[in-house]
Amino acid sequence: MRTQVAIIGGGPSGLLLSQLLHRRGIDTVVLERQSRAHVLGRIRAGVLERGLVDLMIEAGVGDRVQREGIPHDGTVISHGDEMFRIDFTALTGQPVTVYGQTEVTRDLYTAREAAGGILLHGVEGVEIQGADTDTPSVSYTLDGQRQHLSCDFVAGCDGFHGISRKTIPETARREFEKVYPFGWLGVLSETPPVHEELIYANSERGFALCSMRNANLSRYYIQCRLDDRPEDWSDSAFWDELRRRIPKPQAESLITGPSIEKSIAPLRSFVTEPMRWGRLFLCGDAAHIVPPTGAKGLNTAASDVHYLYNGLRQFYEDGDSEGINRYSEKALARVWKTERFSWWFSKLMHRFPDQSEFEHKIQLAEIDFLRSNTAAQTAMAQNYVGLPY
Amino acid sequence: MRTQVAIIGGGPSGLLLSQLLHRRGIDTVVLERQSRAHVLGRIRAGVLERGLVDLMIEAGVGDRVQREGIPHDGTVISHGDEMFRIDFTALTGQPVTVYGQTEVTRDLYTAREAAGGILLHGVEGVEIQGADTDTPSVSYTLDGQRQHLSCDFVAGCDGFHGISRKTIPETARREFEKVYPFGWLGVLSETPPVHEELIYANSERGFALCSMRNANLSRYYIQCRLDDRPEDWSDSAFWDELRRRIPKPQAESLITGPSIEKSIAPLRSFVTEPMRWGRLFLCGDAAHIVPPTGAKGLNTAASDVHYLYNGLRQFYEDGDSEGINRYSEKALARVWKTERFSWWFSKLMHRFPDQSEFEHKIQLAEIDFLRSNTAAQTAMAQNYVGLPY
Repeated sequence: MRTQVAIIGGGPSGLLLSQLLHRRGIDTVVLERQSRAHVLGRIRAGVLERGLVDLMIEAGVGDRVQREGIPHDGTVISHGDEMFRIDFTALTGQPVTVYGQTEVTRDLYTAREAAGGILLHGVEGVEIQGADTDTPSVSYTLDGQRQHLSCDFVAGCDGFHGISRKTIPETARREFEKVYPFGWLGVLSETPPVHEELIYANSERGFALCSMRNANLSRYYIQCRLDDRPEDWSDSAFWDELRRRIPKPQAESLITGPSIEKSIAPLRSFVTEPMRWGRLFLCGDAAHIVPPTGAKGLNTAASDVHYLYNGLRQFYEDGDSEGINRYSEKALARVWKTERFSWWFSKLMHRFPDQSEFEHKIQLAEIDFLRSNTAAQTAMAQNYVGLPY
Repeated sequence: MRTQVAIIGGGPSGLLLSQLLHRRGIDTVVLERQSRAHVLGRIRAGVLERGLVDLMIEAGVGDRVQREGIPHDGTVISHGDEMFRIDFTALTGQPVTVYGQTEVTRDLYTAREAAGGILLHGVEGVEIQGADTDTPSVSYTLDGQRQHLSCDFVAGCDGFHGISRKTIPETARREFEKVYPFGWLGVLSETPPVHEELIYANSERGFALCSMRNANLSRYYIQCRLDDRPEDWSDSAFWDELRRRIPKPQAESLITGPSIEKSIAPLRSFVTEPMRWGRLFLCGDAAHIVPPTGAKGLNTAASDVHYLYNGLRQFYEDGDSEGINRYSEKALARVWKTERFSWWFSKLMHRFPDQSEFEHKIQLAEIDFLRSNTAAQTAMAQNYVGLPY
């Protein structure tokens, strides 16, 4: 088999890239290890930057997100019982859109299917050959048969544990990492959200986040220990702990219900450089991870897709390699800004087990500065709604 | 002897408080351990916030600083050979004033003398009695004689090593501290400054600062090891190392000369809470220390003086204790904001021996964000020119 761009990974980045290229007449094959049901079962973030929504519109999959996505003009930050609001729209002219990553993926599946795009599930043993030559290819096993896919380019959209990054020789890449000494215990429940906007809560007992998917689907998180297990936390223990970490009026009005999903995610910052090796391009989690504070994971993957899509378009439409040659540099410049923001916001909101009393006071001073300083709020809001591509 | 306000410490905070109170007819006695020559020989920062200049004007000692102080409308930040400017005046409407702390002290000595103020030098063995009663007093030894000073209030302006803070029982105070794993090696030289504004330089070899006192008096610093000694650094070794840390055009145009002062200062963040105990009020370094990055030491002392002066004035003029009762709370709210800024700016500009590669990249991303984001520059400039009292 032959295609122009082989895309490894059928999550939202791979699908979005595939759909964008398709609309420009550029041929792709998407290889996904998991089943469609598995991909759609992954609970991920649900706050979209304008840039991602614009890319979805450009990809022809913007109708539902524009109709059903909930614009959020701001967010609430609390410390103990004190709350203040960051007004994104007043400070930056832009809201964010609350719309689950699962829904983004669903919209992309629908569009790829309608267009007859090739999206193979259950693909195993993927290997990339000749990424540093002009004739790269991908081999894989499907239904027990070894297959071979020739292509012009390979897009590695296969996440942190995928093979794309590992295909770049260790001598040709550098990795930067920070592992945070806590995790997030998340619960999904079919209850109305406690507040119409997200609440990021710093408390003496640790961080909590009140988020949502829609008017009757709430997503809550609490900072937990790395050695906690979801089964250690009963629903009532979770709700009790959440109530202790959010301001009193919200704790009192919180509507609880049975958890329909409960899981623990570790927090990690990770970047690999470069994001391009020959004709292999890394996108999204394959190249970088952010802690979930500020919901930058999917949005940063989208900015990679933006740069790669435009680079490939320029190559195929104008015969100009400038965009793909500069892909790594341009993507990384934005990635590091986002890494900085996610690191800063995580540091601001969590209790660190090894935090000195001085550092804790500095954290409170920083929250107080953010509460009282418009320029600091503007810088935060600009990062939250998304820095320009 | 009896006075209204006994002021321990005859550095700029104590003298400024004394002079301000004098102008309102409130009686003070200033007790200083060192000689006048010693106090004037201490080389300290030389960047004044508008709030401090305004206080000097209110104290009747603003003529020379307004005439000879050099307004700086911005500062330069560099990383390697890349430079950018933070335009204080464009971003905040205010410049800072370059005028040595020694000159502030000199102006205050002159004014206190002209007014016949009591300022005792060479005072030893100071003890504060009854600070938690309505009849505090201070005893001390002068010229071998033990003396006793009755007063209404005691202002502890005697610095980090002074006795005022230690007079508050350990059970009644909390201390917060961070010691940085490096020092600043500073050189004063009778040479024209390399640049008309300050240059804060982040380099792979560590921090450097190009500062000045006037058109022919330059003050340069380089980050050094804590176990370095000034005598380990010849003048030429200092100039060579400075050149390696600042952008090339500045390195090439740097005019060097013999050092007329060379010293190493450690970097420390420190806060004690509360800043008031009964009738004892701590001001400046007696209550808090900031690392010198951003020149907040004297300026933060001045904001303490502002709150204490106004509180005492309100007490004596209106019989209202509100200002002195809220002194600690008001002073500390601003102190912690300044501690946060000085900590942030120090973290941004120095190489930390234990810094991971990830943390170093985040530091560079933060410099890049500051370079490119107006809101971040505004927040920085507002802190640099001085947050409102």
